[in-house]
Amino acid sequence: MKKALAFDIGGTKIYSTIINEDGEIISEIDKFSTPKTLDGIKDVLKKQILKYEDKVDCIAIATAGAVNNENTAVIGSTGNLVKGYFTIDFQKLSSKKVFLENDANAAAWAEYKIGSSRGSKVSVLLTLGTGVGGGIIINDKLLKGKSGAAGEMHFKMYPDKRRKCTCGSYDCFEIYASGTALKLDAEETLNDKSVTTYDVIEGLKSGDKKMTEIFNRWQNDITVGIKGLVNLFDPDCVVLSGSMAQFVNTKKIEEGVNEDLVVPPTSIRLATAGNYSGMIGAALLAMQK
Amino acid sequence: MKKALAFDIGGTKIYSTIINEDGEIISEIDKFSTPKTLDGIKDVLKKQILKYEDKVDCIAIATAGAVNNENTAVIGSTGNLVKGYFTIDFQKLSSKKVFLENDANAAAWAEYKIGSSRGSKVSVLLTLGTGVGGGIIINDKLLKGKSGAAGEMHFKMYPDKRRKCTCGSYDCFEIYASGTALKLDAEETLNDKSVTTYDVIEGLKSGDKKMTEIFNRWQNDITVGIKGLVNLFDPDCVVLSGSMAQFVNTKKIEEGVNEDLVVPPTSIRLATAGNYSGMIGAALLAMQK
Repeated sequence: MKKALAFDIGGTKIYSTIINEDGEIISEIDKFSTPKTLDGIKDVLKKQILKYEDKVDCIAIATAGAVNNENTAVIGSTGNLVKGYFTIDFQKLSSKKVFLENDANAAAWAEYKIGSSRGSKVSVLLTLGTGVGGGIIINDKLLKGKSGAAGEMHFKMYPDKRRKCTCGSYDCFEIYASGTALKLDAEETLNDKSVTTYDVIEGLKSGDKKMTEIFNRWQNDITVGIKGLVNLFDPDCVVLSGSMAQFVNTKKIEEGVNEDLVVPPTSIRLATAGNYSGMIGAALLAMQK
Repeated sequence: MKKALAFDIGGTKIYSTIINEDGEIISEIDKFSTPKTLDGIKDVLKKQILKYEDKVDCIAIATAGAVNNENTAVIGSTGNLVKGYFTIDFQKLSSKKVFLENDANAAAWAEYKIGSSRGSKVSVLLTLGTGVGGGIIINDKLLKGKSGAAGEMHFKMYPDKRRKCTCGSYDCFEIYASGTALKLDAEETLNDKSVTTYDVIEGLKSGDKKMTEIFNRWQNDITVGIKGLVNLFDPDCVVLSGSMAQFVNTKKIEEGVNEDLVVPPTSIRLATAGNYSGMIGAALLAMQK
């Protein structure tokens, strides 16, 4: 059975492990803080590759940032990673084939192959974390667009420039549906810069009225955004993944989404492929190439 | 060379003509007011079919409403057409193969084959008319979704229910980017129910300050909506079609869209396949099947 050495390169951490063709993790998960320099990142990758490349068929990297249609490089800049990250020649780091995919795209693929969107012709995955990522699968293929960057969840929630997004534009879905957004919602409502996402979640759990209102506004924004995506893609399901997904009420979101669609109803589901779905998806994609 | 008897069935008019494999219109355009009954619509189609079906290889229908993935029937209800329209068994009307596609999808296909998105791997077409239609092409295929209804331009411009859309939901792109929307913008700004789309366009042309402001708000809403679509689909181009498209400044929209995208820049273009692009696209799709 084929095996891939997989990486997940994010703004804070780099993870690495070995994954087989069934999408099973078959070795330890190695963890590193993401270095703040290009050489630092390359060194982490090189050391892991040196250690494991003889045991695997290919290298599979799930990464922050958009990945080109050739799956060889990151295109453009990625807010959370060191400047010039997109200049790394990943193939140079190994004698084995190196395959890259955007982390949310890779997670969407993992859900499609071994997770909660298995058997779905058309699915949309949202990663609700510090930011919001997206991965869209249409008839057994990831939606990549002309340059590989498709699936970015930066459609607008207001047309008139209210809240600046991390991308530099205004009012993107990401800045209303992320963990960061929940904190901003709370800051605005309570007029208190020190309030945290954690405070809102704890308040929600203990039945605090104000915190519940703040949470409901955030969940409504997520619902409204998903409704637009469902009218565009007519998907079998929308999968919610990422650290914030555990807090939302998927049943309530599903009811809200389905109440006034133009297309037939859809299903809203939590991801089931686990915390390392990015590595699993990248590995499965790399091995099928 | 193959030929198709083509129809365009809209809420107000039904058009019909014959189209060849090159997408050329090779007979008169017949025009009918759309009957208000099911039998009335069927009668118009039957008469045309009886007259022409011996001369063609297939029947191609561009229609309002979503069309299923088998291209045989309309699914769900269509606001502008008679109730129960989706129950029509179109294949029964002819001994030749009958092929249906949504009118905006068909127009997108015509632009892709003989119009302004020719050669584009990924393109989005918007029909800006009384309403807004959408057709999305990804790698030589129309985006259809699980049930055939994908490409509906009912993503939300506000999350908090301001303006009711014709679809029954609130704040859809359609109700901010259509001709109807421009009238609503003017009504709200001028507090005058009698103002028309025509008044705004005339005011814009003559340099009226208020009307120019109203027009610019409308054009900005279109720009903001397209920006979201471009971040989602990463298209080579966005094509603007329909009766309102002639009034927008595509260069200004393109600059606005490209100024803060997450994906690489795109191109905004006017449609060039003409007023009968729906029939042309449906005919080309039907003949390639």
